[in-house]
Amino acid sequence: MTNLTIITLGSLKEKYLVDAVSEYKKRLSSYAKVDEINLKEEKIQDEDNEREIKNAIDIEGDKILSKIPDGAWVVALCVEGKQVDSIKLAQKIGEAVDSTGKICMIIGSSHGLSDKVKNRADFRWSVSELTFPHQLMRVMLYEILYRSFSIRAGKKYHK
Amino acid sequence: MTNLTIITLGSLKEKYLVDAVSEYKKRLSSYAKVDEINLKEEKIQDEDNEREIKNAIDIEGDKILSKIPDGAWVVALCVEGKQVDSIKLAQKIGEAVDSTGKICMIIGSSHGLSDKVKNRADFRWSVSELTFPHQLMRVMLYEILYRSFSIRAGKKYHK
Repeated sequence: MTNLTIITLGSLKEKYLVDAVSEYKKRLSSYAKVDEINLKEEKIQDEDNEREIKNAIDIEGDKILSKIPDGAWVVALCVEGKQVDSIKLAQKIGEAVDSTGKICMIIGSSHGLSDKVKNRADFRWSVSELTFPHQLMRVMLYEILYRSFSIRAGKKYHK
Repeated sequence: MTNLTIITLGSLKEKYLVDAVSEYKKRLSSYAKVDEINLKEEKIQDEDNEREIKNAIDIEGDKILSKIPDGAWVVALCVEGKQVDSIKLAQKIGEAVDSTGKICMIIGSSHGLSDKVKNRADFRWSVSELTFPHQLMRVMLYEILYRSFSIRAGKKYHK
């Protein structure tokens, strides 16, 4: 069975997000062994201090890098990445399933991801030109992954 | 205050989606008077029958058209529309707020929107190349709208 590691920063605060993720995780479990790793977000004192922010995402980035499973196909979510449609994404995921069998998806903190993480990624992926809160993005990612695996399995998937 | 009409098809089934929408609706209410109109989805007997599907979205489309407030700036969500980033969207919404003060957003059913509705729209808008379930899209739309109004109000908005 495919190993799917999802690395995220911070815990979900809203109950409806927790419930949504837990529902999608259950559905996904028929396709993959899901391992969600929640890392602690670095505290930022001054949201206007770019150096402090860069420092925080560098520290977060190093923690992320240490959690990436060896040999995984690594996908970093970033707004400047490349967009693909649902069919193309299902193909890419299918290729990873067939080759390494290990997929690692990374959602950064509200300040984004460090360059080191982006450079480590095999695929820099953008979901939308719009910015979404990283907590809601987690729900969206689970939904997208569930859809991808369903497409790959040839299942009808309700829009 | 801005009149924001959101036209959708079908009721939300999952409690976490209902809770998410209700939370965002509360937040949005400081920026706009929100009127959500849920229309009934047409029943489809045979999901592979294109003529039946076209017929259903035409009927849904006529119901949608009858609910669009006079003089509103009309936005139809469709995957083949144009994407904009969060700042550009906030600008477009700001222009509509300043001109007509009435905004109407339309999310079709799982089968999409009729051409009549797309042609009526002032802006055919795509959130992503990816397909999302229209029920989750409703939550995403509320979040995007709340973010847009917050950006316009010069508020910091947490990602």
